[in-house]
Amino acid sequence: MEKRIEANRLLLFCKRVFTLLDLTEADAEVAAVALVAADLRGIDSHGVAHLARYVRGLQNGSLKARPHIQVLQETPSTALLDGDRGLGFIVAHRAMELAISKAKAAGSGWVVVRRGTHYGAAGHWAAMALAHGMIGFSLTTSASRVAPTFGARGMVGTNPIAIAVPADQEPPFVLDMATSVVPIGRLEIHARTGEPLPAGWIIDTSGQPVTEPAYAYQATLRGETLVLPLGGAGETWGGHKGYGLGLSVEILCNILAGYAGAVTVTPGRESEVGQFFGALSIEAFRPLTEFTTAMDRRLREFKNTPPLPGAERVLVAGQKEFEAMQERMQHGIPLHERVWEDLQAIAQQFALTL
Amino acid sequence: MEKRIEANRLLLFCKRVFTLLDLTEADAEVAAVALVAADLRGIDSHGVAHLARYVRGLQNGSLKARPHIQVLQETPSTALLDGDRGLGFIVAHRAMELAISKAKAAGSGWVVVRRGTHYGAAGHWAAMALAHGMIGFSLTTSASRVAPTFGARGMVGTNPIAIAVPADQEPPFVLDMATSVVPIGRLEIHARTGEPLPAGWIIDTSGQPVTEPAYAYQATLRGETLVLPLGGAGETWGGHKGYGLGLSVEILCNILAGYAGAVTVTPGRESEVGQFFGALSIEAFRPLTEFTTAMDRRLREFKNTPPLPGAERVLVAGQKEFEAMQERMQHGIPLHERVWEDLQAIAQQFALTL
Repeated sequence: MEKRIEANRLLLFCKRVFTLLDLTEADAEVAAVALVAADLRGIDSHGVAHLARYVRGLQNGSLKARPHIQVLQETPSTALLDGDRGLGFIVAHRAMELAISKAKAAGSGWVVVRRGTHYGAAGHWAAMALAHGMIGFSLTTSASRVAPTFGARGMVGTNPIAIAVPADQEPPFVLDMATSVVPIGRLEIHARTGEPLPAGWIIDTSGQPVTEPAYAYQATLRGETLVLPLGGAGETWGGHKGYGLGLSVEILCNILAGYAGAVTVTPGRESEVGQFFGALSIEAFRPLTEFTTAMDRRLREFKNTPPLPGAERVLVAGQKEFEAMQERMQHGIPLHERVWEDLQAIAQQFALTL
Repeated sequence: MEKRIEANRLLLFCKRVFTLLDLTEADAEVAAVALVAADLRGIDSHGVAHLARYVRGLQNGSLKARPHIQVLQETPSTALLDGDRGLGFIVAHRAMELAISKAKAAGSGWVVVRRGTHYGAAGHWAAMALAHGMIGFSLTTSASRVAPTFGARGMVGTNPIAIAVPADQEPPFVLDMATSVVPIGRLEIHARTGEPLPAGWIIDTSGQPVTEPAYAYQATLRGETLVLPLGGAGETWGGHKGYGLGLSVEILCNILAGYAGAVTVTPGRESEVGQFFGALSIEAFRPLTEFTTAMDRRLREFKNTPPLPGAERVLVAGQKEFEAMQERMQHGIPLHERVWEDLQAIAQQFALTL
């Protein structure tokens, strides 16, 4: 029997844990909201299931609770921000706020973060732009577990791209996608459930498909098996495009931020990563309500596309997550047993009750 | 026996044709360079093979030779440009120049084009940023021939994304990719050669794969068969990501430009499309030579990735096109017999010799 917990209780718990780890009240709120928002939206791989990870990072010093975040360089529409290895949520929030304020003044704002850390779901930060009538963008690098097309080594991260666009009555369009065929979190979920992986996700270094989920997950973390890029193996179905997008993300995040390239991983410690945030003002192009009305109409056209035989319906990016949120707001957030145990352990450590 | 023609001769011929169609000397040069650059880079589907199409568009008035291009709205880092249905090359060139000049002053420049038309290879315009030490972006919409995930109707264009990034000694990184599994041009090439299509490119409206090349090409143009998004059918291999990227391109190009959504197609006439151009200053983040040196090192790391058994080598985006250019600069541009005949017909029409 699956356990469910009310979102607000989970939020208060996370916030309390973060304040006990020395985050300011405001930053603890930002971090807790980011985690619980992922769970509410059904992105279980980026929610409180990872709380233990952030607690550990803050405790072993690989994440800072009170980073000294500063602008290193800026122009009217850009900034390079030093994240000082702060907890990723705090840094991402600050970066996106800066992008939005630049977009207010200059039409768009683009902020590259140096010394950032894992920031949870990419879409959460892109979505910060929505309330300001802007299109939001958020990209991040991650450990090199994806094979370039025809390559036998993990060279590029699963490097997600998130784009959030406001609508009027319709839920916003929120695309949040790894540039690999699947994100690592999907492997973790299969490892937990034991469901075999489809061929076309993971290969070994001789190019053979790997489908045993627990092995694939562990071996991929060790760099012994490789995630394929979006588009799959070879060039026939466009694997070179997924690879090219992944490398583009690395360039915009890491090379612009001053890194040599790939993310450096130190076991047991949080990695330092480059990140890229953007906000584009809609009013710079057309009146906002005209735009959001057009979005409504267009999103509905997509949802009303006749489905293929046997298929239920056509979705738009963000729709599934919106529906999960509606359901979870009402009935609580379902937690896997192992996640529940992790949270209980954290509660005990901080003498809290969940 | 394949015919080859010297790039410069082809360039002068195209330029002459365009001036005879009333383009200014400067605009004719821009258009001819765009076409021949595509052929030089091996992107045969976007080169002089389409000259007849542009000639027809200029002659039937669906393309203007002397458009009144004007800025409708602007901020320090953005502009909305009316392309006045000018020949796509002229408008794209003007838009990208504007993006670059804004990036010089404000760190970045983002130009949305309204009433644009087909502009050839997307990467050519992104690459204009390279000489200015900038990262270039170019997106365009196209006729709705791609099925959204689980959908039985063409709803979104093949909507390409191009990103160009300068290096130092290495050729620049130039990603130029349809967000569908293949661009329409690939179908056209298979239709010409008769080589069957792989399953996973085209489906009929019941979801069955279509592999007969001549039929697939014609039926797709008629909207009777559908191109799959990058990532393929369903969600297993990320088809919803390719679809989401395609729709993101439509939003940035068309919805921002003031359109309701999809491109409207009128047979025999050039379609009016929205387009999105960007330039991001590298110096806004780190010294240019430091960045291009880092790019060199990183691109070489990718090229030196050990290949999978049976694979020859690992490439980076733009490498193949760079090599084609080296070869074709020296030995001339190979022209398919049918393209050659088309060019001869144009030559005759304008009383020119090729």
